[in-house]
Amino acid sequence: MDKQILQQKVELINEIIYRQLPKEGEHTKLITEAVAYSVRAGGKRVRPMLMMETYLLFKDDGNDPLLHAFMAAIEFIHTYSLVHDDLPAMDNDEFRRGLPTTHAKYGEAFGILAGDALLNSAFELALSAIEKESDAARVLQGVKALSVLAKKAGINGMVGGQCLDVYADKNEDFKTKEDELYFIYYNKTSALLQASMMAGAILAGASDEDVKKVETIAGDVGIAFQIRDDILDVTSTTEVLGKPVGSDEKNEKVTYLSFAGLEKASEDVARYSETAIEGLSSFPQKNDFLNDLITFMIDREK
Amino acid sequence: MDKQILQQKVELINEIIYRQLPKEGEHTKLITEAVAYSVRAGGKRVRPMLMMETYLLFKDDGNDPLLHAFMAAIEFIHTYSLVHDDLPAMDNDEFRRGLPTTHAKYGEAFGILAGDALLNSAFELALSAIEKESDAARVLQGVKALSVLAKKAGINGMVGGQCLDVYADKNEDFKTKEDELYFIYYNKTSALLQASMMAGAILAGASDEDVKKVETIAGDVGIAFQIRDDILDVTSTTEVLGKPVGSDEKNEKVTYLSFAGLEKASEDVARYSETAIEGLSSFPQKNDFLNDLITFMIDREK
Repeated sequence: MDKQILQQKVELINEIIYRQLPKEGEHTKLITEAVAYSVRAGGKRVRPMLMMETYLLFKDDGNDPLLHAFMAAIEFIHTYSLVHDDLPAMDNDEFRRGLPTTHAKYGEAFGILAGDALLNSAFELALSAIEKESDAARVLQGVKALSVLAKKAGINGMVGGQCLDVYADKNEDFKTKEDELYFIYYNKTSALLQASMMAGAILAGASDEDVKKVETIAGDVGIAFQIRDDILDVTSTTEVLGKPVGSDEKNEKVTYLSFAGLEKASEDVARYSETAIEGLSSFPQKNDFLNDLITFMIDREK
Repeated sequence: MDKQILQQKVELINEIIYRQLPKEGEHTKLITEAVAYSVRAGGKRVRPMLMMETYLLFKDDGNDPLLHAFMAAIEFIHTYSLVHDDLPAMDNDEFRRGLPTTHAKYGEAFGILAGDALLNSAFELALSAIEKESDAARVLQGVKALSVLAKKAGINGMVGGQCLDVYADKNEDFKTKEDELYFIYYNKTSALLQASMMAGAILAGASDEDVKKVETIAGDVGIAFQIRDDILDVTSTTEVLGKPVGSDEKNEKVTYLSFAGLEKASEDVARYSETAIEGLSSFPQKNDFLNDLITFMIDREK
């Protein structure tokens, strides 16, 4: 993975996202500021990047305004989930990536409202962009892609995964079983990666069959990513990881390692990862950067 | 207003909404339960009713599945706003209409998550229904109507209004000015009424010009409704209103009566109300029930 190219892509994505942030109105200074703060505090832009690269796999037009609206939309949805996750009644985190979390900076009420505004803005942005399309086929692609985003972000996707995770955290008597842990990983993490890649494929005009393949690939990437996270919490150091290691054990958190030894877990990461890369190779089209990105996400050391 | 007909309409709407509640999945029992509880605890179904009646003004097809999806969507959005408004960090209400609020019953984390799930489900439902339409013109109507819903629910609509209202509540030094109060009323209340009536009109195929007229009418109805609310808090009794009167004065809340005497306020309600009814009369089509409903909303004694 060429770090310089990665950095350039992140900067391009930031530029695309920031210019679609809600504009300040006469009486909406504070909320637009809180929303912008939440989005700008964010990190690696993995989801819009996956969306754009999957789009580019099927169609060579990185300037599509519909794609750009959806890239901002998926990042807004991801950001809203972090803002609400950080709230005192949820994970109660005052800092994220060294910066005060939204509620720590703007108060709890505005933490809730900024999250709400972000989720709503995601749909608002995408719908405005779809409305502007004059071609009926493109309108349909937009509707289909947004419908996937909504499903994968909702109760049968991200929110569903968050709910079981929060429930397990808050109830000491509840011991997460293996199928429940898989449900949490698949919905909390895989679902938005699937939404990103599927929306990219749909907007680029990929066939239903190819979109289905992309869904499977992204599902595997999410699971591999999560298992890797559990492994690093045990094997890495605080210096490398940039956050305390061993926190899962300290918090008696059920992780993949509660059901599998380190060796088996590492094998499983490799297996999910290979399956994902094989899936990508099965397309006649190629996007080397997308392959590298997925490998990088899974093989990371932090 | 015939109370029996009103009751029948509410029951029909409840039936339409309830069957579109998220279905319980293998690991989503608690969140689907919390979502259903929040929606079922709700009340008068004014927004889906306004949507349906405005639709019927322009087109005689109360069984349109696209309309039904949007009726549930607008009630889900309204419900999410109440669930989040009731949270400890916001209004901190433990009861609503005599029932425990969602967070009081399911815990604060699930109050936040149920609200998130409801907002997301609103778009999910509507998008699924749009996707099912085979006619391109209907797809466009769906996109246009959902775009209006998103705009009116967002920062330049309901959320924007809530933010200024919450900010004014939490900051004792902040004295709401008259234009700010109007902004709060117009966005917190009028915006979703506008979304309801405009979506109804759009889905029934009304012209852009007629949709614009409907927007103005619903805007006036919302303002009249809010001023009436402020008047009742002063002139009614706890017995009639079913909640404590005089609470605005007790909480030193800036209301319409902070800027206008009772007489002027009553005149303004009458004026907004007449303009709205006149607006409705300007359509060649008629829906007597819609006229009655709007008059009833504004002239209510509680």
